[in-house]
Amino acid sequence: MRAEGDGPLAVIAGGGALPLAIADAARAAGREVHLIGIRGEATDAIERYPHAWLKWGEVGKLFSTLELRRCRDLVIIGSVSRPDLGNIRLDLGAIRNLPRLLRLGIGGDDNMLSTLVRFFEDKGYRVLGAGDVAPELLAGEGKLGSKTPSEADLADIAVAFRVVAALGRLDVGQAAVVVNKRVLAVEAAEGTDAMLARCAEFRSGIQRRDLSGVLAKAPKPGQEERVDLPTIGPETVQKAAEAGLTGIAVATGRVLIADRAATIAAADRLGLFLIGQTLPPDA
Amino acid sequence: MRAEGDGPLAVIAGGGALPLAIADAARAAGREVHLIGIRGEATDAIERYPHAWLKWGEVGKLFSTLELRRCRDLVIIGSVSRPDLGNIRLDLGAIRNLPRLLRLGIGGDDNMLSTLVRFFEDKGYRVLGAGDVAPELLAGEGKLGSKTPSEADLADIAVAFRVVAALGRLDVGQAAVVVNKRVLAVEAAEGTDAMLARCAEFRSGIQRRDLSGVLAKAPKPGQEERVDLPTIGPETVQKAAEAGLTGIAVATGRVLIADRAATIAAADRLGLFLIGQTLPPDA
Repeated sequence: MRAEGDGPLAVIAGGGALPLAIADAARAAGREVHLIGIRGEATDAIERYPHAWLKWGEVGKLFSTLELRRCRDLVIIGSVSRPDLGNIRLDLGAIRNLPRLLRLGIGGDDNMLSTLVRFFEDKGYRVLGAGDVAPELLAGEGKLGSKTPSEADLADIAVAFRVVAALGRLDVGQAAVVVNKRVLAVEAAEGTDAMLARCAEFRSGIQRRDLSGVLAKAPKPGQEERVDLPTIGPETVQKAAEAGLTGIAVATGRVLIADRAATIAAADRLGLFLIGQTLPPDA
Repeated sequence: MRAEGDGPLAVIAGGGALPLAIADAARAAGREVHLIGIRGEATDAIERYPHAWLKWGEVGKLFSTLELRRCRDLVIIGSVSRPDLGNIRLDLGAIRNLPRLLRLGIGGDDNMLSTLVRFFEDKGYRVLGAGDVAPELLAGEGKLGSKTPSEADLADIAVAFRVVAALGRLDVGQAAVVVNKRVLAVEAAEGTDAMLARCAEFRSGIQRRDLSGVLAKAPKPGQEERVDLPTIGPETVQKAAEAGLTGIAVATGRVLIADRAATIAAADRLGLFLIGQTLPPDA
């Protein structure tokens, strides 16, 4: 663990397995951990750590919890649904910070997340990336499972990473699906799983026998990688298989693998390759 | 009608209202017309013109029909589903041209369509664009309906055209949806209607009261505009409304409007703006 600070590490936890993986890694490295679960997003499993629960909008409670637990370092991790703004009750701390919080809602994802990081930093907190705390959660270089991509797969991967880079420069998305060098789908706000589901639907009528194509995933150039690394997991592999793809390529060191063992096992079981590639610096 | 040739104009007709609109325009300009309907794609309404029907794969029959009717000029227009390659019976003419036809299936859409145009040109045919035969079907400049876009809408339009241009340079897609400067969806192989349907689904849970955002549509830079102009119609307007958008922007002179009167009427009835904008030459 690169980053040491005083007090426990606060993990602000959205959904999925990653918040606990981060907590486990930090504790294994000898650091005290305090989890702050977002109600409706984080799983109850966070309760096996010292924890608190927050609702969307309870910004004042968030800062009082961090204060009370003497946390100066924090990791923000896990999936979040876009909350229904009409149902959020703002607490006093939220209302005090309203102008900056409102700015979070405008512009692309990346703009929002950079603003979020600055929001915490301006208050004296240090925002760590998942990779700072648990580098072992990041995708490594080369083949991660047992299957090797073909020449045709490598050509599709190259096209897909080019598309993701171009989209990322516009703060659009982190993933694309390419089949025989043709871009089948591009991810914007819908998320990778939804994109893969539509590929599955789109391809179901066409050519089941002749499966091919890849999913590529990489952060946007200049993206705030501390709070929004692209993530894959066993479900991504499952959905890629259902979409008739032959494998998944991710940017080495810049994509999180939620539940690595299960993810690689799923890829091997379903016959998909899983590979990390180092992208050129401008990608 | 700019392009005059000898013999009747052949209209190779896919689905939708455009093939007949082209035929009507050509006949109104005093040219004889022969429609060649693709079975399963074109509507029976083409039968009010001299016509023939072809199945996918009947390439030999296509050329013998063009020969018989003494057509040297052709327009290829209308929507096509991607045919199930396994169910196509190739005729002798198709088998003779197989290497080139197979190349149509590789690479992006635009690559395919350029190859298709060259395929006809190499055989001595002249491929005309819809705009050559019926320029009145192309979107004009400025407000096409009665509603005017707001400043916020114009900002969303600018972002959306930037995204479409960037995607187009990679031969990906022709359309994007932007809401409050955030890119909600990007079109690849699924088509505009499917993209709008997913926006509708995506937004249904969030903020029904606060509708906003635009659909922008433009050809790809360098696209073969003779055979693949982006198209909007009354259904596009309907689906944009269902996705909670406030309007549609298209590239002036480079997007077809199928059934202009119905399209503008739908926009006015549903309260959406519809505007043509001239894009910078590199877009």
